[in-house]
Amino acid sequence: MHKLSTGGRLTQELVQEMFLPALENPALAALSDSAILEQLPSGFPALTTDGFVVDPPIFPGGDLGYLSVCSTVNNLVVAGARPTGVTWALVLEEGLEGELLRAVVDGAVRAATEADVPLVAGDTQVVPRGKGERCFAVTAGLGIVPAERKLGDGYIRPGDIMIASGTLGDHGATILACRHELESAGLRSDCAPLGTLVEALLASGAEVHALHDVTRGGIAATCQVAASRAGLGMVLEERALPVRREVRAVCELLGLEPLHLACAGRFVAWVDGRNAARVLDALHAHPLGSGAGLIGHAEASGSGPARLLLRTAAGGQRPLDKLSGLDLQQIC
Amino acid sequence: MHKLSTGGRLTQELVQEMFLPALENPALAALSDSAILEQLPSGFPALTTDGFVVDPPIFPGGDLGYLSVCSTVNNLVVAGARPTGVTWALVLEEGLEGELLRAVVDGAVRAATEADVPLVAGDTQVVPRGKGERCFAVTAGLGIVPAERKLGDGYIRPGDIMIASGTLGDHGATILACRHELESAGLRSDCAPLGTLVEALLASGAEVHALHDVTRGGIAATCQVAASRAGLGMVLEERALPVRREVRAVCELLGLEPLHLACAGRFVAWVDGRNAARVLDALHAHPLGSGAGLIGHAEASGSGPARLLLRTAAGGQRPLDKLSGLDLQQIC
Repeated sequence: MHKLSTGGRLTQELVQEMFLPALENPALAALSDSAILEQLPSGFPALTTDGFVVDPPIFPGGDLGYLSVCSTVNNLVVAGARPTGVTWALVLEEGLEGELLRAVVDGAVRAATEADVPLVAGDTQVVPRGKGERCFAVTAGLGIVPAERKLGDGYIRPGDIMIASGTLGDHGATILACRHELESAGLRSDCAPLGTLVEALLASGAEVHALHDVTRGGIAATCQVAASRAGLGMVLEERALPVRREVRAVCELLGLEPLHLACAGRFVAWVDGRNAARVLDALHAHPLGSGAGLIGHAEASGSGPARLLLRTAAGGQRPLDKLSGLDLQQIC
Repeated sequence: MHKLSTGGRLTQELVQEMFLPALENPALAALSDSAILEQLPSGFPALTTDGFVVDPPIFPGGDLGYLSVCSTVNNLVVAGARPTGVTWALVLEEGLEGELLRAVVDGAVRAATEADVPLVAGDTQVVPRGKGERCFAVTAGLGIVPAERKLGDGYIRPGDIMIASGTLGDHGATILACRHELESAGLRSDCAPLGTLVEALLASGAEVHALHDVTRGGIAATCQVAASRAGLGMVLEERALPVRREVRAVCELLGLEPLHLACAGRFVAWVDGRNAARVLDALHAHPLGSGAGLIGHAEASGSGPARLLLRTAAGGQRPLDKLSGLDLQQIC
């Protein structure tokens, strides 16, 4: 079994032997200090970055490489951008198994292919054994927002409905089940690149005001951020949240709520309330949107701070706070 | 002393309390999934990424934050690009000292200010104690290459001279001296953003064919890569290499050659041989170029593979190979 050793020469061999053939494209092949891209279409450039320390690095439905590229693509597309290039950097622990590295590289390539975006620049750093955790990945992405698109929390209005693009918490539950060696039958990460789903939504003609991908902290954290930036209240309907039975089971075993579990291939859209049917039709027609559903609405927050409320299945209402817990780290 | 704990809420507090005030700019302040930038000037976009695991993270002349932003800016400017935005991601080990994090954030901000480029997006990931090494940084950078600029190894011609923008190996020697607890009097990293120096060189009217920043593997690795891509031989003049006395002393103690030591604020330029005086005048007139000197030339490689040769002070000639050693890791 090939294992990774440190050393400038070995790192360069690794890059040349494993990365370049896998990531074949003209920009990367130059192996220069910077990748030079084609001239960009007009519009506003969007830049994003994200680090990934997920444990375990391979899980049902994905791996660290696939997750990292999908998440960066998703950060761009929920801003309304069309992705034009992704960079990919790895911090590798000495002794890393070659099979794991290969799986992670293949995962990144698969995500880039599915998202139809080139991996244009890469870097690897090797740290001594015990100074890392096998493999960390950091990606950055560049996209272009067409000038006519207006998306953002500032456009959300009281009465907007909130629509989730699919079931919630699958990714987080899958990772936690792996980590706690729980029965994971039926669990699978929702990790996926969302570009074509977002384009289908925007092409539906619905009045879309804002989009967020649902990641760390789950739908609760996502909606809290949006509520606070929009200066509005948000109400989630517990009964309406699309959550798989298997995900609920993991939550019950671990004392967590699906609301707090990360997704890696879902977004939530704030849409004019009159467009619900049009939006759901557009999403349901796409393979990645088949589980889409209406989950809540925005409302005026009155004089108090912007708040996120959960209307419970029992008919009550309670504020949702963010979690602060060790177990929810290294999920994505 | 404030120490870092894991947890979604703490990470967000950390970002909001430490990063946002330090990195104040309109793109970042939105704290959205992506930063949306102003429309770009025309030209070719350049994208780059780099990971930094430098040990120790604070050293004479810089720190992990300053180094990471300077290096990314330098990757862009040696490609002829004008930097328009840098992203900055951290992987932090639980228990990290708040003072160290503050120093690294301040260093990144100082580099961005000196380079006149905004830090437009950031991310932090926290890993459990023992799963990281205090702090890793990964940056990505976007720049625009004006359409009329033609720089690249393919433009290097036999007879081109090679000019280093300053003394070599200062950064690597400084890090190694810290790590081996050697007397470091007079040693200081050369870490600096090189945008204005590159612009001064290009404005000199000299016919510049290629530029590389001198990083991992030192001037030897840099010239080997250029030789191989240009399909030419390169000859370095040992007697001409600008190396400080203190750097030579560290090399002698550790059995290394200055040729293999990383820089973090130097470039090497391949220039038409008739333009030597013009280039040196332009570089010497800039504070970061005061140590610039002619170090070698490119020549036809004949029928053999492209080679890097060192003409020694004694008058002999020997091929230079890359180093493969543990001690040269985690330098930059």
